[in-house]
Amino acid sequence: MRDVAIIGVSQTKFGELWDESFRDLITTAGMKAIEDANIEGADLDAMYVGNMSAGLFVQQEHIASLIADHAGLTPIPCARVEAACASGGLALRNGIMAVASGFHDVVISAGVEKMTDVVDPTPAIATASDQEWEAQQGITFPSLYAMMARRHMHEYGTTREQLAMVSVINHKNGAKNPLAQFPMEITVDTVLNSTMVADPLRLLDCSPVSDGASAVILCPAEEARKYTDAPIYVKASTQASGTIALHDRKDLTTIDATVNAARSAYKMAGLKPKDIDAVEVHDCFSINGLLAIEDLGFVQKGKGGIAIEEGMTELDGKIPVNPSGGLKSRGHPLGATGIAQAAEIVWQLRGEAGKRQVEGAQTGMTHNIGGTGGTAAVHILSN
Amino acid sequence: MRDVAIIGVSQTKFGELWDESFRDLITTAGMKAIEDANIEGADLDAMYVGNMSAGLFVQQEHIASLIADHAGLTPIPCARVEAACASGGLALRNGIMAVASGFHDVVISAGVEKMTDVVDPTPAIATASDQEWEAQQGITFPSLYAMMARRHMHEYGTTREQLAMVSVINHKNGAKNPLAQFPMEITVDTVLNSTMVADPLRLLDCSPVSDGASAVILCPAEEARKYTDAPIYVKASTQASGTIALHDRKDLTTIDATVNAARSAYKMAGLKPKDIDAVEVHDCFSINGLLAIEDLGFVQKGKGGIAIEEGMTELDGKIPVNPSGGLKSRGHPLGATGIAQAAEIVWQLRGEAGKRQVEGAQTGMTHNIGGTGGTAAVHILSN
Repeated sequence: MRDVAIIGVSQTKFGELWDESFRDLITTAGMKAIEDANIEGADLDAMYVGNMSAGLFVQQEHIASLIADHAGLTPIPCARVEAACASGGLALRNGIMAVASGFHDVVISAGVEKMTDVVDPTPAIATASDQEWEAQQGITFPSLYAMMARRHMHEYGTTREQLAMVSVINHKNGAKNPLAQFPMEITVDTVLNSTMVADPLRLLDCSPVSDGASAVILCPAEEARKYTDAPIYVKASTQASGTIALHDRKDLTTIDATVNAARSAYKMAGLKPKDIDAVEVHDCFSINGLLAIEDLGFVQKGKGGIAIEEGMTELDGKIPVNPSGGLKSRGHPLGATGIAQAAEIVWQLRGEAGKRQVEGAQTGMTHNIGGTGGTAAVHILSN
Repeated sequence: MRDVAIIGVSQTKFGELWDESFRDLITTAGMKAIEDANIEGADLDAMYVGNMSAGLFVQQEHIASLIADHAGLTPIPCARVEAACASGGLALRNGIMAVASGFHDVVISAGVEKMTDVVDPTPAIATASDQEWEAQQGITFPSLYAMMARRHMHEYGTTREQLAMVSVINHKNGAKNPLAQFPMEITVDTVLNSTMVADPLRLLDCSPVSDGASAVILCPAEEARKYTDAPIYVKASTQASGTIALHDRKDLTTIDATVNAARSAYKMAGLKPKDIDAVEVHDCFSINGLLAIEDLGFVQKGKGGIAIEEGMTELDGKIPVNPSGGLKSRGHPLGATGIAQAAEIVWQLRGEAGKRQVEGAQTGMTHNIGGTGGTAAVHILSN
């Protein structure tokens, strides 16, 4: 297996981007990554694109061909990979395999979602849950995560304020990220007084509906210095599945797919949680930001709330979480998120993260999940 | 790069399967392939699933997790890959890369589509074309392929009867395939008198709307004999993209993606068209069965019609095409097709194809395309 490096990254602004189409967003992200890697389009051998549901959001499947066509990159192969909100993580992982296997040399792994061209994105998002046993019964993602939050509060005494702190810290970081959808600070009171969505989760516990795209460029590690003085190396790329239906889980407070993907990732990298300097976690709802640091092994199960309250996850804490602002503040264009997480970690490891820089970060992790944890992808990157 | 072998294959019956759900179909195909490979579910390391649009056909994205859950195969990773009707070919290719890279050892690559749970599948199928420049203008796939057919007739004198022969030969083979959706013979007259769909294409020039699933099991070539006495080896696995929009092509009578994927495949395998003993081509419409043998290099451009008329593609011809019955007779559950093609070639190379056996077949090829040729995947298999 060949080692793999990241030589270029990009992210478009995330937000309600009325003047940018699906195809414009992904092409812009691709061009920015190509520029960042100091290569040309003609240097690319293959493309992977993570996207959850262009079919339901913009009535377009076969986006692999659309993108190759629109970007002028035919005839190189392009594949869309999908696992709901973990689609970006899978695009990264399959791009890594394409390079590791020797099938391709310079590969772009991108992610994109255009969510604001529909009147109500909820039915499309709900297709990430079990359609027959969950969505058709009327349950939506805020209510699924609300049950997980309520159970965590019941089992471990996690407080409403601790959940709010997940959003507060994300926004504190995101306020320093010019590409974030909501780059402003909020307080615990703002969260607690925001509109109720699904008890106990309020509006500011929820990541937004977003348009956006992101891209990373991969090549064999041994060739990376041909392109850049600051290659970032892929130390681990893992994925695990869990039950798609929440009611099939033994425990609502643990996402087994995260636990399994993280365990494989630490093993593949030969590292431990204490070796990680910064992590981008999948905080689609505040409770998930909390579950993530437990399931990734940064704190014991049940201790996430206290750890967050005590500042462990702040930019200068023991394990800085979501320096980018996370899904909550940066935004969450579903298929783009897993790639944007990797872009952020690359900027952190290169020391290019500006006011949100984690001092001295050498090794970072990304954690991208689909649905309520039916899929989890974990990557460890290092310079 | 590790060499890769196929140790098990399966296909469900294709057809209008009212009593089998999406999740039942894919699980059945998976179990049959596991049985064929003489392994157990617990031996699997990873799954790839080709599917064009469960989102639009059964309102279910995140099928990777659904399948892992329903089949009881969590926590192994599962990824859906999509490129319209070439989704199955991409699932095969990415499964091969997962094994070749060393990331995984025993991988199942499957494909599935459940198309008959909607009142009209046409809008979903149309998302394989360029939504903004083609589908929204009202054009559908029969009419896109009709233009390609008309142009081929104009340029090369291809006759209406020669197109009909593509369907006739497919049905002659498919009549010997118990898993085919339409296992009966038809005549040129039946085709020419069937309902007009998009001039010059009539109903019996068109592949049907189908439900179905198929699966293949892959492992490192050097370990294949642990599982089977008749491993089939992957000699080439390639993919190319072309423009998604037909009007962007220089030539309506050549599918560049097929030409490019085939050229790469022959190079990767170190083989020439004359070395192929049987080929499964993507005859979604009769014209495409004809273009395929030209673009894959079996006959010169423009000579496809004559070659078919003279019997070159029959079961006992110079290059037997679609011994399975092809998309026309076997059926075309979009995401399953690319995998079912590989299953057929494996049966042929093992000498297990019964009455439709190509005598002495040692090397076979599959050709799977998406849209009007925005994507093409080509595989060469050998025993």
